[in-house]
Amino acid sequence: MEPTTFVLFGATGDLAKRKIYPALYNLFVRGKLPEAFSVVGLGRREWTDESFQANVEQSLERFSRTKPDDAGLLHRFLQAFRYSVLDIGREEDYRKLLDLVQRREDELGIPGNRLFYLSVGPEFFEPIAANIQSSGLGDVSGWKRLVIEKPFGHDLRSARHLNEKLSQSFEEDEIYRIDHYLGKPVVQRLESLQQGNPVIQALWTNRYIANVQITANETVGVEERAGYYDHTGALRDMFQNHMLQLLMMAAIHLPYDSSSEKVRFKKKRVMEALELVQKEDVSLSVVRGQYAEGTVDGKPVAAYTSEPGIAPDSTNDTFIAARLMIDNNDWRGVPFYIRTGKRLKEKSTRIVVEFKEPVKQSWSDGATPNLLVIEIGPNESITLQLNEKEPGPNGGFKPVHIDLQASPANSPEAYENLIGDALNGDSTFFAHWDEVELSWEWVQPVLDAFAENLVPLHRYEAGTFGPSESDALLAKDGYRWWFDKPEDKSEKNEGERYAYHANH
Amino acid sequence: MEPTTFVLFGATGDLAKRKIYPALYNLFVRGKLPEAFSVVGLGRREWTDESFQANVEQSLERFSRTKPDDAGLLHRFLQAFRYSVLDIGREEDYRKLLDLVQRREDELGIPGNRLFYLSVGPEFFEPIAANIQSSGLGDVSGWKRLVIEKPFGHDLRSARHLNEKLSQSFEEDEIYRIDHYLGKPVVQRLESLQQGNPVIQALWTNRYIANVQITANETVGVEERAGYYDHTGALRDMFQNHMLQLLMMAAIHLPYDSSSEKVRFKKKRVMEALELVQKEDVSLSVVRGQYAEGTVDGKPVAAYTSEPGIAPDSTNDTFIAARLMIDNNDWRGVPFYIRTGKRLKEKSTRIVVEFKEPVKQSWSDGATPNLLVIEIGPNESITLQLNEKEPGPNGGFKPVHIDLQASPANSPEAYENLIGDALNGDSTFFAHWDEVELSWEWVQPVLDAFAENLVPLHRYEAGTFGPSESDALLAKDGYRWWFDKPEDKSEKNEGERYAYHANH
Repeated sequence: MEPTTFVLFGATGDLAKRKIYPALYNLFVRGKLPEAFSVVGLGRREWTDESFQANVEQSLERFSRTKPDDAGLLHRFLQAFRYSVLDIGREEDYRKLLDLVQRREDELGIPGNRLFYLSVGPEFFEPIAANIQSSGLGDVSGWKRLVIEKPFGHDLRSARHLNEKLSQSFEEDEIYRIDHYLGKPVVQRLESLQQGNPVIQALWTNRYIANVQITANETVGVEERAGYYDHTGALRDMFQNHMLQLLMMAAIHLPYDSSSEKVRFKKKRVMEALELVQKEDVSLSVVRGQYAEGTVDGKPVAAYTSEPGIAPDSTNDTFIAARLMIDNNDWRGVPFYIRTGKRLKEKSTRIVVEFKEPVKQSWSDGATPNLLVIEIGPNESITLQLNEKEPGPNGGFKPVHIDLQASPANSPEAYENLIGDALNGDSTFFAHWDEVELSWEWVQPVLDAFAENLVPLHRYEAGTFGPSESDALLAKDGYRWWFDKPEDKSEKNEGERYAYHANH
Repeated sequence: MEPTTFVLFGATGDLAKRKIYPALYNLFVRGKLPEAFSVVGLGRREWTDESFQANVEQSLERFSRTKPDDAGLLHRFLQAFRYSVLDIGREEDYRKLLDLVQRREDELGIPGNRLFYLSVGPEFFEPIAANIQSSGLGDVSGWKRLVIEKPFGHDLRSARHLNEKLSQSFEEDEIYRIDHYLGKPVVQRLESLQQGNPVIQALWTNRYIANVQITANETVGVEERAGYYDHTGALRDMFQNHMLQLLMMAAIHLPYDSSSEKVRFKKKRVMEALELVQKEDVSLSVVRGQYAEGTVDGKPVAAYTSEPGIAPDSTNDTFIAARLMIDNNDWRGVPFYIRTGKRLKEKSTRIVVEFKEPVKQSWSDGATPNLLVIEIGPNESITLQLNEKEPGPNGGFKPVHIDLQASPANSPEAYENLIGDALNGDSTFFAHWDEVELSWEWVQPVLDAFAENLVPLHRYEAGTFGPSESDALLAKDGYRWWFDKPEDKSEKNEGERYAYHANH
């Protein structure tokens, strides 16, 4: 691995503490960091190297999946960390930073490979990138990389603007846009499941697939993010990025080649084939929802518009369901249903691939569609649901669940995978500009339709699976959301539970 | 269920004791026998009804999967049993039998439905059928059925002769030819696995399947059957019936309809499409073997020609391997490899469906073909072998085994399934004349080639997987027999063990 300097903007922040330091530490423990490795943390707070290292250590104790039990190991890890005070707008701080980075590069024999990780608000991406450029920090003898995380713009126009600005300092292939859903082991294994298995490849087409359902349900409300969220909504916050990235990952075909370029190319082709919706037609394929008061996990919760920090007349979307069509030979005729929302009945992120149904005959009582179920959270697994005939001449079919891949306990977290990839220069599991732009192109008319109130805002009771129009969206095509838990708690056996469709 | 008389020829024999009485008892316990049910046992021995019933009871105690613990239940079951002495060639015994059957029919209110089960040597099929006809036993007011078990002839000519003779007394749809391999739950579930699951149907074609391997390996030698076996051989004893029936069951496509007529039609179509081999070309696709001395399960065993009752210069086949091609749109280009033999390393009956291989790339280290493995004996299971990527950027692929269907413990045995089907008039899982005749048509030139010594007889060491020419048969096509255990006992992990190919 190439000697590297890891320059972290936002070193005193929450993401750094919860995710980035633990990710670096676990990479270190696994021998996945370069021998010569320098971390320079930046923030406005007046920390010293020592207080920085102490903070990193605390973060590992609280958040690392491998506890820092080995004092010698921990000491070696922390030695890599230096801190520098930086005000994002102050040019001289960048010159100071450059001095520190160069000094450490000399000490450790690092030949000018610099990774800039911007763990800061999106409004700072532009000035930081510009200052990296103007200060000379970006003039490297080796390589430079920029790691950022969503939001990448607020709409199509602002996303393009941001990208233009970043392009003045970094080439596209130097920019690593984190979408942590792409870092989840189960999402990454979905790709290798296809690659390594001709039988899965064979099935991955509209010839056998009836529809694909991508769900990201949350039980939480807006929490402390009211100010941000009320100007963002589910469409921007989840759909434009995570949900469409999952759609791409489900829809790409990667039988023989998993190179980063090929993945990027295939994802772009999927997005190019996505049928755009005219503003006037959005209400036909998109359901907009906002939670009313209700009960979640047995506790009464307030309506969205009664949450602190939310405008009482807010029409912001806390729920989105949409039906998307990909107009290419592989997917023509296969609806991709996406839904995501807050204050729903159950926290669950999953992709369900529903295969075309067996033709019903007298013998096929109870036969349900075959399903490939990719559970992304809170548990991770890949399961194939087939039908098994119950013994005896009159035995009907019942579903059986076959675990294809359960994630081993204590496997690397998303950030660990992604930071490791960025250090290795592997952009396979990152969002590329083409994808971001094409995602915004699909989303923009929906945003416009929302703004002009062309799409009804359905209020849904908190603790349900969203407005009934979300079910109706699938019912129009003869389908239903799989695995929505029924409302009542009546005793049902496993088969019935799974086959049951919640009417709410 | 229709009231029935079950007329059993060979009631004092071994098969009746081990299989038929336990099958009837378990059907009775499960409520799968008609309310009005009469069993008439026949044999040369001078048994009384009481000694017959006592013998049946003993057989249940020894061989039934459900022990006859409930005295009341057992008593009700045994009350159905009557015995009559019968010499197969003596006409008056049939008239006596007719009297007894009619008396019982009157007593029990059975409207002349008679099932004749011939648990006797094949040389008696013809005279018994003729006597059933001439005695008037076959003149029924309801239905009559004939149940027989292989061998159905000794070659094509004698099979046709036998069928002609039986046809004089029974219509084809009254004849139930038992092949107990078709009664095994896992073989029957193979069919429903396909029917109930579009994803399995989708894969069941030459588009995705590379080859199919059907193995029935035995560890035993000729045992007490030397006289019979030395004039029969593996080709007649196993291949012409069981092995070709398994080939049919693997090759038929039954997506929507499982009616008995459809199964029969589909099996016939498979056999009609089987490419016949000219006598002169048999040695290109058939391997003939005979076991030499060796070691089985750690014990030294004698060569076939040293077995008691075997001619010292016998050229009889104790091992057959063959490559068969089905010339239809579903299977063109997919070799079906069949092998069966005695004194092999391991007792195992299985079908392996090998899917076309993933294209090998640098990332696909360790990726092996996807396999669908149907274990028929000694254990029953259906397993899908896929490739899973080991975690980490350099992780190769390793095979994972997914149990699709493990048989529940204490599930019905083959005879229980088949006798129940025969009582219900369901001939789905029986061998039909078309299939028998077409099987003999494929086998006949091989028999001729053996007789004229056009095919070398390879002697193989007992305790191996047969002659090396059996491996070469697959190697010519770039394949290998799956799951042959390696010769040495060196430590191998599960993955390696399965991927390993024994060279012997």
